[in-house]
Amino acid sequence: MEPMYLEEFAAGQVFRSGGYEVTEAEILDYARRWDPQPFHLDDAAARGTLFGGLAASGWHTAGVTMRLIVESFPPAGGVIGGRMEMLEWPRPVRPGDVLRVESEVLEVRPSRSKPGQGMLRVRCTTLNQRDEPVQVIVPNLVVPRRP
Amino acid sequence: MEPMYLEEFAAGQVFRSGGYEVTEAEILDYARRWDPQPFHLDDAAARGTLFGGLAASGWHTAGVTMRLIVESFPPAGGVIGGRMEMLEWPRPVRPGDVLRVESEVLEVRPSRSKPGQGMLRVRCTTLNQRDEPVQVIVPNLVVPRRP
Repeated sequence: MEPMYLEEFAAGQVFRSGGYEVTEAEILDYARRWDPQPFHLDDAAARGTLFGGLAASGWHTAGVTMRLIVESFPPAGGVIGGRMEMLEWPRPVRPGDVLRVESEVLEVRPSRSKPGQGMLRVRCTTLNQRDEPVQVIVPNLVVPRRP
Repeated sequence: MEPMYLEEFAAGQVFRSGGYEVTEAEILDYARRWDPQPFHLDDAAARGTLFGGLAASGWHTAGVTMRLIVESFPPAGGVIGGRMEMLEWPRPVRPGDVLRVESEVLEVRPSRSKPGQGMLRVRCTTLNQRDEPVQVIVPNLVVPRRP
């Protein structure tokens, strides 16, 4: 991937990542460390909950998503987002799901106060193998202008 | 912690977690796996960036926050949030920072369509050892009513 400066981005551009399989072992490993709740740790316990079976922590899905964005979305200087307008998890991620991310540029905004940079408003949709959204985030990214 | 039903929550309640130290080893470990960018992986490389030195991935801070919320915020049925109104990282997390979370109930809303549950709007602020916010999220949590 060639790093891109603010001037090279335009609303409507879409960047697509490769796929990433979320295994049961990884779901359990993430949950033990960061989100130790029964529906993320044990399939039997998860059946009696809103999830109806073992589901990945949303923050695990967010980690997978970030990895896929870093691999597929090329702003010069890296992917740096200070503020997210929203984050939603419309459906659970299950063991064996294969996730991918589509990042669509919504808006390109040069900074008024900092001449060397601007903001990129992006919608990153994480999809499973049935093309169903499992996460949607709308970050505002800081991107340098061409020197 | 005694699990709490929707009826026991009220706007203005604040729940406070214990502290969690974020080590340099953990920052590197998280970044290698989920957010492999120079400013999260290498202090020297990070100096020339917006971060000015090694900083934890925001998603790592989100994982630490979730762990602290699970330990300190007691809705019956677990902490289940489908939608986040916002997520921001106002300043970086550095090696050795000790984080804690304050969760303030903003609104309690019984569901009109599902008599057994309701929504809790909460602001979870993650603070460092100088009481500076490093992350703010506003989740909407699904919480069961008293049976």
